[in-house]
Amino acid sequence: MRTVFFKNKPKIIATSSIAGPKESNGSIAGYIETTLDDDMYGENTFEKAETKMLFKVFEKTIQNAKLTPENVDVIIAGDLLNQIISATFASRNFSCGFLGAYNACATFTEALTLGATLVDGGYLNTVLCGTSSHFSSAERQYRYPLELGCTRPPLSQWTVTGGGASLIAKEGKGVKIINATVGKIVDFGVTDTNNMGAAMAPAAADTLITHFKETGFTPDYYDLIVSGDLGAFGSRIFKDLVWEKGFDIEKQHVDCGELVYNICEQEYQGASGAGCSSLVFNSYLYRKLLDGKLKRILLMATGALLSSVSSQQGESIPGIAHAVCLES
Amino acid sequence: MRTVFFKNKPKIIATSSIAGPKESNGSIAGYIETTLDDDMYGENTFEKAETKMLFKVFEKTIQNAKLTPENVDVIIAGDLLNQIISATFASRNFSCGFLGAYNACATFTEALTLGATLVDGGYLNTVLCGTSSHFSSAERQYRYPLELGCTRPPLSQWTVTGGGASLIAKEGKGVKIINATVGKIVDFGVTDTNNMGAAMAPAAADTLITHFKETGFTPDYYDLIVSGDLGAFGSRIFKDLVWEKGFDIEKQHVDCGELVYNICEQEYQGASGAGCSSLVFNSYLYRKLLDGKLKRILLMATGALLSSVSSQQGESIPGIAHAVCLES
Repeated sequence: MRTVFFKNKPKIIATSSIAGPKESNGSIAGYIETTLDDDMYGENTFEKAETKMLFKVFEKTIQNAKLTPENVDVIIAGDLLNQIISATFASRNFSCGFLGAYNACATFTEALTLGATLVDGGYLNTVLCGTSSHFSSAERQYRYPLELGCTRPPLSQWTVTGGGASLIAKEGKGVKIINATVGKIVDFGVTDTNNMGAAMAPAAADTLITHFKETGFTPDYYDLIVSGDLGAFGSRIFKDLVWEKGFDIEKQHVDCGELVYNICEQEYQGASGAGCSSLVFNSYLYRKLLDGKLKRILLMATGALLSSVSSQQGESIPGIAHAVCLES
Repeated sequence: MRTVFFKNKPKIIATSSIAGPKESNGSIAGYIETTLDDDMYGENTFEKAETKMLFKVFEKTIQNAKLTPENVDVIIAGDLLNQIISATFASRNFSCGFLGAYNACATFTEALTLGATLVDGGYLNTVLCGTSSHFSSAERQYRYPLELGCTRPPLSQWTVTGGGASLIAKEGKGVKIINATVGKIVDFGVTDTNNMGAAMAPAAADTLITHFKETGFTPDYYDLIVSGDLGAFGSRIFKDLVWEKGFDIEKQHVDCGELVYNICEQEYQGASGAGCSSLVFNSYLYRKLLDGKLKRILLMATGALLSSVSSQQGESIPGIAHAVCLES
C-alpha cells in the first residue's frame, strides 16, 4: 500500500509563487504573486538568485496566511541543485525546523505528502512546503555552460526560473489535502538526458494507476489530473500508458510544463524543474480551487532521478511521481 | 514546537549494516553485519559500489525482519552524492514507494523521524530507512581527486565507507521510537570546509537544548546521547555549548564519528558521512538496545549543509541535527 489517507484533511491555508521574466510572460502570468524583470534578482550568482526566490515565497506565504515566521513549526523543501543548497540557504533565516527533501522535479508533492502527514496526525501544527528551480543554475549544473550557447534538441524542456510554497495547517480556510500516493521508482531504460518526458512518463502512469487502484477513484472523480513536467511528448506517452491500463484521462489531463510558457517558443516540450509544478500549483491551481472553479484535482509532480555522474557512468534515468489529491 | 511525540511507539524491528575494509577493522567491527575486503565491492566505480552497499543493507534488513520486499510500503533514504543517486539507484529494484531525503550527514535521523511518523499515525505499515556514504565517492565530489594525494589538515574527518538501514513497523519486537526533535538550521559562520565539526556543533547543541526543553527530559534520562559525526574537536565544542546552557552531558555523550575507527589513525577527528551514524546505530547501538545493555538513547545525526558551489561562492556552512529518542 502506497496511498496515505488523511483523516482530518489538513488544509493549505496560504501559498505564494515567484517567477523569472520568461515565466512572467507566459500563460499563467496573471496568477503569479511575484514576477521578476531580472532573473538575477539583484544577486551576483544564479544560485543565490534562486535561494532568494525561495526565501521570498516562504516569507510571502507566511504573510498571506497572516502568520509570523514563529508560527511555522517545520519547513520541508528541496530543489535541483547539488545538496539542495537553495532550499537550505533559503530556510536558514527561519527559526523553525528543516527537513530537506529530494525527488528531483517530484519534490513538491513529496513535500506536500510529508507535510500533510505531520499535520494530519497532530504531530505538528504548521508545515511550510516549497521548491524552486532556476534555468541558469540548473543548466550549468546538469548540462553545459550557458556561454557555450549549445543548440537545444527538439525533445528538451526549459527549466522554470521560479518556485512556490504552500503552508499546511490543521485549522483554517483553504484547500483540503485528501490523500497522497507515494511514487515508486520506475526505470524504462531511457538514457537520453534531453528527453526527460519519456523517462518520467512510465513512473507517472504507475503512480496514477496505483492511485486509482488503492483509492477506488476513477478519472471522472477529478476535474483535473495535473502532471508536473512531462512536457508535450511525455504527456502523450503518459496518457497512452494509462489508456493501455483501461483509463482514459484525455479530458482531465493537463501538464504544468505545458501551462507555464506560451506555445511555439524555444522551450519545445514546455517547462520543467522542481519549481515547475510548485509555481503552477501555488499560483493558478490554488486560486482556481479556492474560488471553487475547480472542485477536485490530482497533483502529480514528476521527477527524473539522475545526476551528471550517473549519466556519465552509463546509468539510465529512472522516474518517480507522487500524487496528491486536493479539494476546494 | 519541533518535537514530534509518537503515541504508538513504532518499532525498529530489524536493521542491517555494511562497511568498507577500514571501518571493518575499527572498534565496532564485531557488530557490523556485512564487512567488505574491497571498497569497490566488485563494481567499476565508487558510486556504483556505494549504491550496491545500500542495496545490500536494504535487502538484509528485510531478510532480518523475516519479511519479503513486497511487505515494505515505502523506502526513505538519502546519501551525500549529488541528487542522492546512491539512495535512488539502490531503491530502484524495490517495488515499494520511495521518498528521497537530504540533510547531509543528518539524513539518517531525518529518515527515522519521517518513517516513524508515517507508521505511528497508521498511514503506512512498514517503512525502510537507510543512508550510506563512501570515502572515495565523497572525497572526489566534495574535495579533490584522490589521485592528487592531498595532505589532510588536522581538523578533517574521514568519510565512512558504509551504511545501514532500519525497518520501522507498528507491530513486532524491537527498539521503540519514542519521539523526535526536528533540527533547525544553525549557522555560526564557519567557512573552513575541513572543519565540519565546528560547523555542526552549534546545530547539535540547539537541537539537544530544544529537545530537553520540549520533552522535559534531562541528560540523566538517557544512557547515551549519541551525536552523529562531530568528531573529537566538534564534540568538545558541542559539550561546551550545551554546558553553557546548564546541561552537563559529559557522562552520557558519545560520538559515532569517534566510535568507528581505532584511535591515533590518519582520520584525525574521526569518521563522518551520511553512513556514519547509520552504520553505528544499525550495528552496535541497535544490538545493545535489543540486548537491554542500553535502556534509552538519544540519537542525533549531524549534518553540514554545504555544496562545493556554495563554498566557492563564499557561503558559510550551516549545520543541522535531528534527534530521535529510542528505547529498548
